[in-house]
Amino acid sequence: MIKAYAATDAGAELTPYEYDPGPLADGDVEIAVESCGICHSDLSMLDNEWGLSQYPLVPGHEIVGTVAAIGSDVTQLKVGQRVGLGWQSGFCLDCSSCDKGDHNLCKQASFSIIARHGGFADKVRAQANAVVALPENIDAESAGPLFCGGITVFNPLVEFNIKPGDKVAVIGIGGLGHLAIQFLKAWGCHTTAFTSSKDKALEALELGADSVLDSTNAASLAAAADRFDFIISTVNVTLDWNAYIATLAPKGRLHFVGITLENLDIAVLPLLIGQRTISGSPVGSPGTMEKMLSFAAKHQIKPMVEYFDFSDINNAITHLREGKARYRVVLKHPSD
Amino acid sequence: MIKAYAATDAGAELTPYEYDPGPLADGDVEIAVESCGICHSDLSMLDNEWGLSQYPLVPGHEIVGTVAAIGSDVTQLKVGQRVGLGWQSGFCLDCSSCDKGDHNLCKQASFSIIARHGGFADKVRAQANAVVALPENIDAESAGPLFCGGITVFNPLVEFNIKPGDKVAVIGIGGLGHLAIQFLKAWGCHTTAFTSSKDKALEALELGADSVLDSTNAASLAAAADRFDFIISTVNVTLDWNAYIATLAPKGRLHFVGITLENLDIAVLPLLIGQRTISGSPVGSPGTMEKMLSFAAKHQIKPMVEYFDFSDINNAITHLREGKARYRVVLKHPSD
Repeated sequence: MIKAYAATDAGAELTPYEYDPGPLADGDVEIAVESCGICHSDLSMLDNEWGLSQYPLVPGHEIVGTVAAIGSDVTQLKVGQRVGLGWQSGFCLDCSSCDKGDHNLCKQASFSIIARHGGFADKVRAQANAVVALPENIDAESAGPLFCGGITVFNPLVEFNIKPGDKVAVIGIGGLGHLAIQFLKAWGCHTTAFTSSKDKALEALELGADSVLDSTNAASLAAAADRFDFIISTVNVTLDWNAYIATLAPKGRLHFVGITLENLDIAVLPLLIGQRTISGSPVGSPGTMEKMLSFAAKHQIKPMVEYFDFSDINNAITHLREGKARYRVVLKHPSD
Repeated sequence: MIKAYAATDAGAELTPYEYDPGPLADGDVEIAVESCGICHSDLSMLDNEWGLSQYPLVPGHEIVGTVAAIGSDVTQLKVGQRVGLGWQSGFCLDCSSCDKGDHNLCKQASFSIIARHGGFADKVRAQANAVVALPENIDAESAGPLFCGGITVFNPLVEFNIKPGDKVAVIGIGGLGHLAIQFLKAWGCHTTAFTSSKDKALEALELGADSVLDSTNAASLAAAADRFDFIISTVNVTLDWNAYIATLAPKGRLHFVGITLENLDIAVLPLLIGQRTISGSPVGSPGTMEKMLSFAAKHQIKPMVEYFDFSDINNAITHLREGKARYRVVLKHPSD
């Protein structure tokens, strides 16, 4: 039996929940969970905001642990190895996206907290292909958030060929944004944090941002016209997107990794005149996760986390819901 | 004096109009106009739809002619040489876009029919850098529309690295779309024409489209889910863009070269899940124009045009306004 924490209904508190995962599938691994980050999308799933939730729901998709068991077909991982698991828990391995190494775009991808149960538990299972080994020299205790928040903001740097020297801005200095700033600094970009909070402005500079722009100040925004090669939006609220698009340089890209439920309202002419682009992307492939972990280890990039015991899970969720997390909450077992 | 046709007011008919262009600037050339296409954007400018028009307005920015005179600094063009001129008539040559060869994104670019006067005239002037020589083996008489309609749909193939074998769809089978189909066929793409007109469907197939998709048929559109690597929209009306986005393959791009005045209303989640992109682009640089002309000459790609005499200019405009042009109207002098 796996001992987990589950919500039995939309918006409900988490309560202890045991389930029998059955025999281990040939291509799966079982991970003994050491820690698990809490992501905003765990809250969205708890609240059934996207209409995808199935209850009882065990959240948790920023998982670090050790391989406890492997299926008979698994050759690339060994029992005892330290690994991580993110939002996606398996792929078809047969579509054109999987063929190209773009597993994260696989239409048949399964998710760690849909159909399967997630990492707010002592153990979790996933297809071996979705489980990524941790490099030796990474701080394992804080690494969980790299597997969702981290890969989500790192992946676009690879996908869109962001180069050192590029002017990049980050919208939303939170769980994702504070990692984006650290990655961008190490990537050699000139990094601007959009924020209207003085506290976050200072923290963004400490994390490595080169400058801060108050997005609520129309004059500051206007002065940044045509500036940025790349803007990454990590927020899930609607902003004045056309004002941000005006700050894109020719051929610049406004890229969404945060899911806003309201549609974008976008003027065509500024896109057309400046050959500007709008796009989105989900997490990243296992291959890109390996690249991200290796890059994070080399540059000592770490999520800034606050630890809670698994037994204190509802307080941890409340802390995140109230916007108090600086910048990511990670659950641990008391014995750790 | 230059003999032209001008509108003196928004929406007015064109009437003969003479103006003195003054001494020829050192970096400019004067072109003796042989023919000039009429583009939908000439109508938009005549009607001051974009608020940019200055009257008297001489439209015409799909110009073919011969160099009649060159300024003292001009070395790259010779009197008597056959050339073309499009929407842009000069560049700052000093900004980062010009530095990179992206002259068409120059914020200081001047336009053939704003500030200057256009090609509905016996002569026209432009900065030599904006004037492109015609290759020997191209059909000069019908080449005018390549300088705006043609370059506008060719440029994205170069800019976005469209490859032979890519599945590409064209929205709007008109002045731009009929050229896009021809370019895409020669480029080796699998080309689909979106159209609800049976006549245009047949013509699209004759022009080289591999298939036709009735965009008003919800079932056909649904059956094309996740299909296209690239969709180019040439229309200036609002369509159900999210339905088109659903037909994009992972990493697919919906690209706007037609200007819709209504904002786009775009759902974020389908962009994000499929790493899809929305973008726009304006015409193309002189360098890309040279490439386009050479490609058109090699593959014998020609605009399908209907000729009108310059003296019959108002009837030609009415013909285009009424949506009767198949597919481009070109004005010529009676002596040609």
